[in-house]
Amino acid sequence: MKIETKQKQMTDVRNTASNQAEIESALRWVKPSVRSLGAYTLRPYEPRIKLNQNESPYDVPDELKRRIAERLADRPWNRYPPFIASNFISAVSEATGWPEDGILVANGSNELIQAVLAVTVGAGATVVIPEPTFTLYRLMTEVHAGTVASVALTEDLRFNVDAIVRAARERDAAVVVLCTPNNPTGGWLAEDEILRIHDDTGALILLDQAYVEFGGFDATPLLEGRPRLVVLRTFSKAMSLAGLRAGYMLAHPALAAEVHKAKLPYNINFFTEVAAAEVLRGRALLADSVEKVRAERDRLLREMREVPGIRVYDSAANFVLFRVRSPRITHTRLFERLLDEHGILVRDVSKYAMLDGCLRVNAGTPEETGAFLDALRTIMSEAA
Amino acid sequence: MKIETKQKQMTDVRNTASNQAEIESALRWVKPSVRSLGAYTLRPYEPRIKLNQNESPYDVPDELKRRIAERLADRPWNRYPPFIASNFISAVSEATGWPEDGILVANGSNELIQAVLAVTVGAGATVVIPEPTFTLYRLMTEVHAGTVASVALTEDLRFNVDAIVRAARERDAAVVVLCTPNNPTGGWLAEDEILRIHDDTGALILLDQAYVEFGGFDATPLLEGRPRLVVLRTFSKAMSLAGLRAGYMLAHPALAAEVHKAKLPYNINFFTEVAAAEVLRGRALLADSVEKVRAERDRLLREMREVPGIRVYDSAANFVLFRVRSPRITHTRLFERLLDEHGILVRDVSKYAMLDGCLRVNAGTPEETGAFLDALRTIMSEAA
Repeated sequence: MKIETKQKQMTDVRNTASNQAEIESALRWVKPSVRSLGAYTLRPYEPRIKLNQNESPYDVPDELKRRIAERLADRPWNRYPPFIASNFISAVSEATGWPEDGILVANGSNELIQAVLAVTVGAGATVVIPEPTFTLYRLMTEVHAGTVASVALTEDLRFNVDAIVRAARERDAAVVVLCTPNNPTGGWLAEDEILRIHDDTGALILLDQAYVEFGGFDATPLLEGRPRLVVLRTFSKAMSLAGLRAGYMLAHPALAAEVHKAKLPYNINFFTEVAAAEVLRGRALLADSVEKVRAERDRLLREMREVPGIRVYDSAANFVLFRVRSPRITHTRLFERLLDEHGILVRDVSKYAMLDGCLRVNAGTPEETGAFLDALRTIMSEAA
Repeated sequence: MKIETKQKQMTDVRNTASNQAEIESALRWVKPSVRSLGAYTLRPYEPRIKLNQNESPYDVPDELKRRIAERLADRPWNRYPPFIASNFISAVSEATGWPEDGILVANGSNELIQAVLAVTVGAGATVVIPEPTFTLYRLMTEVHAGTVASVALTEDLRFNVDAIVRAARERDAAVVVLCTPNNPTGGWLAEDEILRIHDDTGALILLDQAYVEFGGFDATPLLEGRPRLVVLRTFSKAMSLAGLRAGYMLAHPALAAEVHKAKLPYNINFFTEVAAAEVLRGRALLADSVEKVRAERDRLLREMREVPGIRVYDSAANFVLFRVRSPRITHTRLFERLLDEHGILVRDVSKYAMLDGCLRVNAGTPEETGAFLDALRTIMSEAA
């Protein structure tokens, strides 16, 4: 039988001189815009303490895992998932009060960013993006041949609401993307700022609220009567499910129906549907861990402000951005010493515009956060 | 805490006269090409016997489910999946003998179809598609502004190899998509036919082999030294995992690196990675169920050919296509009677070009297949 026998090891098929021409005959069909993209690679680290991806330090409670395991046993794995992930969607509707036909679910909010921009952005469309921010918005705009109108954050890395409104109006922007709280800076928009951007422009306002459980304003109550607002949420942060890759979108049902057309069918597997729904319904069990993370974020802000040689930026998210401003140590050296001497991995975000010299650290458990603060104090005081 | 309190039920946000203008102000940003697409809807059936989606009738063996559950317990759910799904990829490499850097994995082979066409198809690119076939190839070509060169199957619904080669040469096609065995018709390409299409054209040859465990030629051994060949495989059929949405691609590493650029990062959740790898490593436990499905497919072909008023087409897949050719009963009526009187759901594929009057039925368990055959005989003999 075919699926049993394939163990023979093929000889190396890579760049031998003889087949280089054949390889080129395949690669010539890859679009130049794709070939020129650098391949995304990630150096694999195995740190003792991992504070680089804004994950929750707390796993899903065992009680929820047990419920999920029971649901899995109930369900045939050989059958396609339902065409509509109705169990997941109804759990989102219960949690948010938003109607089911205004909800889309996906494998991570990344897929929803992709879908929203796929149905709205083509050649000639402008997308306003306050930057620095999560890079996928720009990438997806460019993939769809749209134009990014980048609006710089202020010097203290807050949103420049006036400039956002002005850019959207001047360019008749199709979409304004607002990541609030913003990754990787931590800044956020207040209710009146979101309303002003909505009311003073004609654009779709895409609010990525991946971090909103930790602070900032939750825009869900603004959705009613404002069909140009779209809210994205994720399970990767406060919901302790970065491993699941699940997210959802709340929007007017008429707009949700259009965005839905850009999604592949049967795209949510049965595990994601079951796990996301159970965790959402059991989210009271996660409340304590979210509170602890918020407290550790506040502690990071408070204690890091006492450390010499760095500038700490305000944050409503579960992470803190800081800039190394010491004549004695660079951000690169600090990053390396945290990792090599203390086993602590943070995120180097210094390649973003405006973030020269910046690192990002997320709140961990009290022990993890404490270890980071001790290490930071030690290294920076030696460098002082 | 925010994630705890959102139970208020919002009032209906749909098309009240007062906000119709606001709704239009949002929808005007949706591209006309998207708005004109019909929304994909599916009438939900709850049949007694489900033979409409080419699923395996056999669930994953309990022993494999147990192994998967143990692996899940080992792993923190709050952490992102690995950047590269290396456990899944190494299981694919062990099973196929193909090098790991020539393997991409995804949430269903649909995602890989999307990715391959995203990196190769732009305005001006031609994709040769023998039709009727799985509709996603055409949809994704058109989404990326490419041109489909459709090559009709022969009158008996086999591939027309001469016409495929001619179309690819005349149009200098970027890609030739070959679904073999072909969905929804069941036809397949032999080794020499695949080689001829490869050797006589300069195109990328994308072989979707979702059904190859059931018959036809498995092109994996042809990959070596032929970087224009790309093979897609799925877990949804012979691997009894339609609920998982997992698939993989085998290609030259240089091409795989380019296709990889079109995929979202961290896109395989930990459950998919664990389940796909365990099922692939334990696939000997599925061999028996694949054999049974093949036997039932052969039985369908054999016994359906004795039924008056239908034409049955050859198939190497786990389904059989047939055309209703009776003055007394239409395919629509046959579909309804199978469902209403016998609780058996098949697939109406009569809307495809060339498939007027056609239904598709997949092989089930011996009992399910037998029930279908009895029902078909009963209905067609009454109509004779």
